[in-house]
Amino acid sequence: MTTYHHYRPEDAAEWDRTDPLADLRQHFTLPPGIIYLDGNSLGALPRTVKARLEQVITEEWGRHLIQSWNQAGWYEMPRRVGDKIAALIGADAGEVVVADSTSVNLFKALAGALRLRPERKVILTEAENFPTDLYMVQGLIDLLGGIHRLERVSIEALSEAISEQTALVLLTHVNYRTGAMHDMETITAQAHAQGALMIWDLAHSAGAVPLHLNAAGVDLAVGCGYKYLNGGPGAPAFIFVAKRHQREFIQPLAGWLGHADPFAFAPDYLPAEGIARAQAGTQAVLSMSALECGIDLMLTADMSQLREKSLRLSAMFMDTVAMNCPELTLITPRNPHQRGSQVSFCHPEGYAMIQALIAQGIIGDFRAPDILRFGFAPAYLRYTEVWDAAQALIRVVKERLWDQPAFKRKNAVT
Amino acid sequence: MTTYHHYRPEDAAEWDRTDPLADLRQHFTLPPGIIYLDGNSLGALPRTVKARLEQVITEEWGRHLIQSWNQAGWYEMPRRVGDKIAALIGADAGEVVVADSTSVNLFKALAGALRLRPERKVILTEAENFPTDLYMVQGLIDLLGGIHRLERVSIEALSEAISEQTALVLLTHVNYRTGAMHDMETITAQAHAQGALMIWDLAHSAGAVPLHLNAAGVDLAVGCGYKYLNGGPGAPAFIFVAKRHQREFIQPLAGWLGHADPFAFAPDYLPAEGIARAQAGTQAVLSMSALECGIDLMLTADMSQLREKSLRLSAMFMDTVAMNCPELTLITPRNPHQRGSQVSFCHPEGYAMIQALIAQGIIGDFRAPDILRFGFAPAYLRYTEVWDAAQALIRVVKERLWDQPAFKRKNAVT
Repeated sequence: MTTYHHYRPEDAAEWDRTDPLADLRQHFTLPPGIIYLDGNSLGALPRTVKARLEQVITEEWGRHLIQSWNQAGWYEMPRRVGDKIAALIGADAGEVVVADSTSVNLFKALAGALRLRPERKVILTEAENFPTDLYMVQGLIDLLGGIHRLERVSIEALSEAISEQTALVLLTHVNYRTGAMHDMETITAQAHAQGALMIWDLAHSAGAVPLHLNAAGVDLAVGCGYKYLNGGPGAPAFIFVAKRHQREFIQPLAGWLGHADPFAFAPDYLPAEGIARAQAGTQAVLSMSALECGIDLMLTADMSQLREKSLRLSAMFMDTVAMNCPELTLITPRNPHQRGSQVSFCHPEGYAMIQALIAQGIIGDFRAPDILRFGFAPAYLRYTEVWDAAQALIRVVKERLWDQPAFKRKNAVT
Repeated sequence: MTTYHHYRPEDAAEWDRTDPLADLRQHFTLPPGIIYLDGNSLGALPRTVKARLEQVITEEWGRHLIQSWNQAGWYEMPRRVGDKIAALIGADAGEVVVADSTSVNLFKALAGALRLRPERKVILTEAENFPTDLYMVQGLIDLLGGIHRLERVSIEALSEAISEQTALVLLTHVNYRTGAMHDMETITAQAHAQGALMIWDLAHSAGAVPLHLNAAGVDLAVGCGYKYLNGGPGAPAFIFVAKRHQREFIQPLAGWLGHADPFAFAPDYLPAEGIARAQAGTQAVLSMSALECGIDLMLTADMSQLREKSLRLSAMFMDTVAMNCPELTLITPRNPHQRGSQVSFCHPEGYAMIQALIAQGIIGDFRAPDILRFGFAPAYLRYTEVWDAAQALIRVVKERLWDQPAFKRKNAVT
């Protein structure tokens, strides 16, 4: 039987008093009366965004118009912000570019990687991978006429399943449902041992856990701007291509911004040197400007402090809830080396429970079919908030609050 | 020898006085002292954008956070704004969705169309098409192993070149260099007569010229949000799929937002009904909110009045400049049925001429190798401004102002 640690409210209060990251919260705008445990879905608003967007709108767009492509640095922005993300994920400058959505970037990475392994026809992934990653693979395989195969295995079976047929292994580093975190270095090495390439989806890890892409020898990666990077709703995503692959990396979304000389308007595509070739069309400047604010803020924080706080927040929540609510099934690994920055429980009435929490101003979310999911963004959460959230969840479960008419609400939180 | 119409400054003043669209200009923020003839590259700033973005940032993102996906309508926004665009381009509700960049949408359209004509291997286009359109075709052909062929012909040779081998004809409706406008209905009918599909790129026509996609029987189209729709730098683009094709239209960027039930998190891709299947990943909400402001503004204007003003503005500019500057070669058709909303001249020293104009606050742009390009956005330009711009260009050419040190500037306008 699992032994849970017994936390006390005074622990939380003490940790808040001595939190080296306490000031960071002041740089976010958080709604009063809300405990926000959904930063893994949409990160909170950095205070700098409003003024920055006003500047981009009024000065750069409104006043300087087209000249801002050069003078305000819009044209360089995808690479400039990409370099900042590189610093957060253990990559080098010139290995990351901001562009498109995570899904679209994954398509580029998949197609580019298959081209680097033309003899191999298997794309190996975890059955529990985020669906859009599976869909993008299916879309590509279908487009290519079905000569490739998507092999989906349990994570336990993964290393055995890598073979000389494997073109690439695709995994999401932190699972969107369970919060389980894979061992990036070990699995990447296992892929390489068989000659396969490794693509990591960092949606739930960039900004949340320390990442060392180059130390782990990662080939390609994609990630999301609107979760722990706090880039705003639908913020542009990013793609990483290791320097050693860039010369051979050809991706099919061959838009003009990936061209060696876009403004020559040459009739034939010639990919740019370096990471720029991972771009396709013109990027959303307003959204990318907000993303840059979020990233600038995350760059001010010490990632090891963020990680320590994240693990303590999530440990306190999971142990406190699990100890008091045997009705809930904890599906997040308790081992700190095996989880990201979220905690998930299962319960057949999970949806109603989350609604009852939301009605009390505690925002977690529900993932079908039965998962209660709570994200812990250490940049702006307080220990006492997380303590209060745990107590609220315990009360919801014990008192079956979702059965009370007052807590029955219509709208799903997605 | 061409006979040009002789315009007088009092014509321009009179037309401003009686302009039925004069009030529309008040809904844009325009920089003082600037005559902006580059709305075909980046449209001007609608006055509503600043307050709308402040609301999206402060209220929707900052205060309501993740709940805004439902409560603020973010989730529906691509289709809601798509329906508004449909009204501008002669399409029906449910035929347009806002997503990604024009290039990425073109990839979806191309791949989806090839799938509808599996026996045919030729993609036919105009040699002078916008390069990113050519590049995207090349990227797709390359990905598919080279079994398809991109055939580039002059526009004069196009109708003859359509054959039973032609899977699809891809054209940009208004040429980015010359401003020449193709006859959408005739060419679409020619493609159909050979059993080919027709894809139109509306980058330089949406919001600028009357469009009747369904009346012309168009199959697929893509377009740009940041030119005449005034959606802001890098605004999301759009894709049109005619209702009759939607059931068979399968595009390879099979992201979760194109899934029939994204939040079921099913392991296999099942495309949504209708235009929603043309979506891939999560969209940039801030940028899309600005785009909606631009589109709402364009919806208040009468497109036939916009067209009439656009033609009169551009006719006055081209005739006045051409009559006075035989050094410049007019490459835009004078026939109003054969041009969009821009005027272009060629000159070997075109780049320097544009710089000399910019130094005087007249913003046109340069397109390699030798094109001076001027866009006429009838929503916010005055006749007297265009008159003044024509006089300034004549003076630049006659007095060789670009040879004066005062006008030599370093920065390119792109």
